[in-house]
Amino acid sequence: MGSTVASAQTNPIKGITNIGQWVSWNPESRQMEIGEGGTWLIEAGVFSEYQPGSYKDSGFLDARGMLLTPGLIDPHTHPAFAATRELEFEMRSQGKSYQDIAATGGGIRNSVRKLRELPEQKLKDLVVERFTMMLAHGTTTVECKSGYGLSTESELKSLRAIQTASQTSPIQTLSTLLGAHEIPDEYRDNREAYISIIVNEMIPAVVEAKLAQFCDVFCEEGVYTPSETEEILSAARKNGLGIRFHADEFVSNGGAELAAKMGALSADHLMAISDEGISALAESDTVATLLPGTTFFLGTNTWAPARKLIDSGATVALATDFNPGSNMNLSMPFMMTLAVIYLQMTPLEALQAATVGAAKSLGLASQRGAIYSGFQADAVLWRAENYRQLAYFYGVNHANHVVVEGKQIH
Amino acid sequence: MGSTVASAQTNPIKGITNIGQWVSWNPESRQMEIGEGGTWLIEAGVFSEYQPGSYKDSGFLDARGMLLTPGLIDPHTHPAFAATRELEFEMRSQGKSYQDIAATGGGIRNSVRKLRELPEQKLKDLVVERFTMMLAHGTTTVECKSGYGLSTESELKSLRAIQTASQTSPIQTLSTLLGAHEIPDEYRDNREAYISIIVNEMIPAVVEAKLAQFCDVFCEEGVYTPSETEEILSAARKNGLGIRFHADEFVSNGGAELAAKMGALSADHLMAISDEGISALAESDTVATLLPGTTFFLGTNTWAPARKLIDSGATVALATDFNPGSNMNLSMPFMMTLAVIYLQMTPLEALQAATVGAAKSLGLASQRGAIYSGFQADAVLWRAENYRQLAYFYGVNHANHVVVEGKQIH
Repeated sequence: MGSTVASAQTNPIKGITNIGQWVSWNPESRQMEIGEGGTWLIEAGVFSEYQPGSYKDSGFLDARGMLLTPGLIDPHTHPAFAATRELEFEMRSQGKSYQDIAATGGGIRNSVRKLRELPEQKLKDLVVERFTMMLAHGTTTVECKSGYGLSTESELKSLRAIQTASQTSPIQTLSTLLGAHEIPDEYRDNREAYISIIVNEMIPAVVEAKLAQFCDVFCEEGVYTPSETEEILSAARKNGLGIRFHADEFVSNGGAELAAKMGALSADHLMAISDEGISALAESDTVATLLPGTTFFLGTNTWAPARKLIDSGATVALATDFNPGSNMNLSMPFMMTLAVIYLQMTPLEALQAATVGAAKSLGLASQRGAIYSGFQADAVLWRAENYRQLAYFYGVNHANHVVVEGKQIH
Repeated sequence: MGSTVASAQTNPIKGITNIGQWVSWNPESRQMEIGEGGTWLIEAGVFSEYQPGSYKDSGFLDARGMLLTPGLIDPHTHPAFAATRELEFEMRSQGKSYQDIAATGGGIRNSVRKLRELPEQKLKDLVVERFTMMLAHGTTTVECKSGYGLSTESELKSLRAIQTASQTSPIQTLSTLLGAHEIPDEYRDNREAYISIIVNEMIPAVVEAKLAQFCDVFCEEGVYTPSETEEILSAARKNGLGIRFHADEFVSNGGAELAAKMGALSADHLMAISDEGISALAESDTVATLLPGTTFFLGTNTWAPARKLIDSGATVALATDFNPGSNMNLSMPFMMTLAVIYLQMTPLEALQAATVGAAKSLGLASQRGAIYSGFQADAVLWRAENYRQLAYFYGVNHANHVVVEGKQIH
């Protein structure tokens, strides 16, 4: 019942048997595969092999009548925030836009003020709660951005809170420095100085403390220009961080093209991507990470051109963009619902984007996001007859059992 | 975790104490009221009085840190269906419209074929499962329509399945005969004969067997005309049933005006309502029951004009329209989310519409939908700091405890 699970058992299991239906990317045939019945064996946290028979040993998780999918992967979230922003949500119902609210001191800057005041331990506790809810909804790997601190001290605090939260939760995390989420108020008239702090202080400090794998920039009109983005992300790369983009969310400014040119792992949002941007992603290894929950929550009706991206050959991932301002939602299955209704993706494409597509967006495509020999044993058993029902029967949490690295968490 | 709750304890409680925040319609001041702390006492299944202090007696439900609202009321659902329709959902992702699918034998007629084949006991079991999920998401009263039978025998079967399901579930139900949901295939060329069956067979049989309180007609271009609707609902009223309308969903055909003229309890959908229809509802006691989940699920972007309805003085209710074709969702909090984002309703108006507005739509406004002396003790305790978070933090089930007629169900 409900979302906050107290008990975090972690029983290693030998496999998942009597599977109703299982659906996964097959890395050899390079397509999604649908199977029925049988057993997936697990050894040392990794899927070893598939056997058509069933096992009665108590070490096996019985999946009778259930749907088995890889653990869902959420490759774009902002979980380290101090306070919810439901008052701004109410303001939007009265006709204010997200940009209007930001212009009057709300938005990201509202979160920045509150985050800076919050003790690290309390922030960590909040992040743990959010991880628990994510796991309960089938997310086994999550990318977590900082970005509500906007000072070296508070960005480090955010990333440490994510790291310590991760150590107490079975969820698997990757962290991203997003010092370039906004220009902090105190540098409004001197943005170059703040960029210099990101480049010369934050990035080295984060790398030194091993607090993040990635660096991200909000490349957007009114936030960071493409050339500022390039400056920051070049520095990140030189320091050994993988790079990610908030690109073409509201205005097309060449963000996707720049992401492809720089070899970013992922270009995210893309509601306003140009045809040139689509071609650039299709010809690159940069994943198009789509966040339909943000379009939904902001009510803007500007949906990323998923169909064009897929048809042109780009790899598409789905993510929640979980954050207190533009999408207060952490359910990956709901993103699959939005993908089918609003992005014209099939239920199978949506599941692919929420598993192997998302894994590629995090540089993990050879290890996670598939139920296959040699892949990490992250999986979800759903109360559903078939994979199409996940996106279709929305608003109810169908996750029944969650397995992370071969251990049963729920 | 998840949605299907096995344990249905039913402990009578003496009250709800240490309330974090409580929000309810006040029938004396005729507005929504927000309070903090204190205790609501319950006697014989009814709220007796509010006390500012707290109680330590074990018979009280401790609501520390939780939000208390009236039990949610869902005044428009179609829970008596035999099979889910995720294949049609997939077809829509590939560009087929709801009407395209209906024209090729899918849609309601697909559900009719499967419902007629399903034994009544199995249908009842499915309805019980759905009631359990509704309760788990905070719905304490639900209106349930037949309408996938389209023959006297199978409409009666549907209503009996709802009735027997209701007897084994703590949820409270009201039933609606919706024999006029479609024209059955076998009467395509002789619709007058089918209407005559509804009027002369179904309605009397349903009243005789005490299987429904209401009668409803899908008054829409291509389904039932306004004059056919009037004929059927006049007969229903003569037989003692309350009347409800599916009105102005896709095309404005005077359905809302007719509902008001006939004194219907509710006119539902209203995405295409005319200004005359809005005026007619505003001047009547007929509730405008809005189903934003259907617009969302069909992806049509045609939202009912909630703001105009409220501002002109009509009473607005929210409902899920839970059904396998046009909205596979049974979460009233998600309807509140849609209401805030897409219907420009405030979070407080959304809660009002999901409680007292919905109660009025079912003719229960003096007994349910409010936490107030003399009102039935139906309530939900939510893991939320305040009522705005219910609509804002969507996609997660925040319902923690559910109370029906003074008994704790969860």
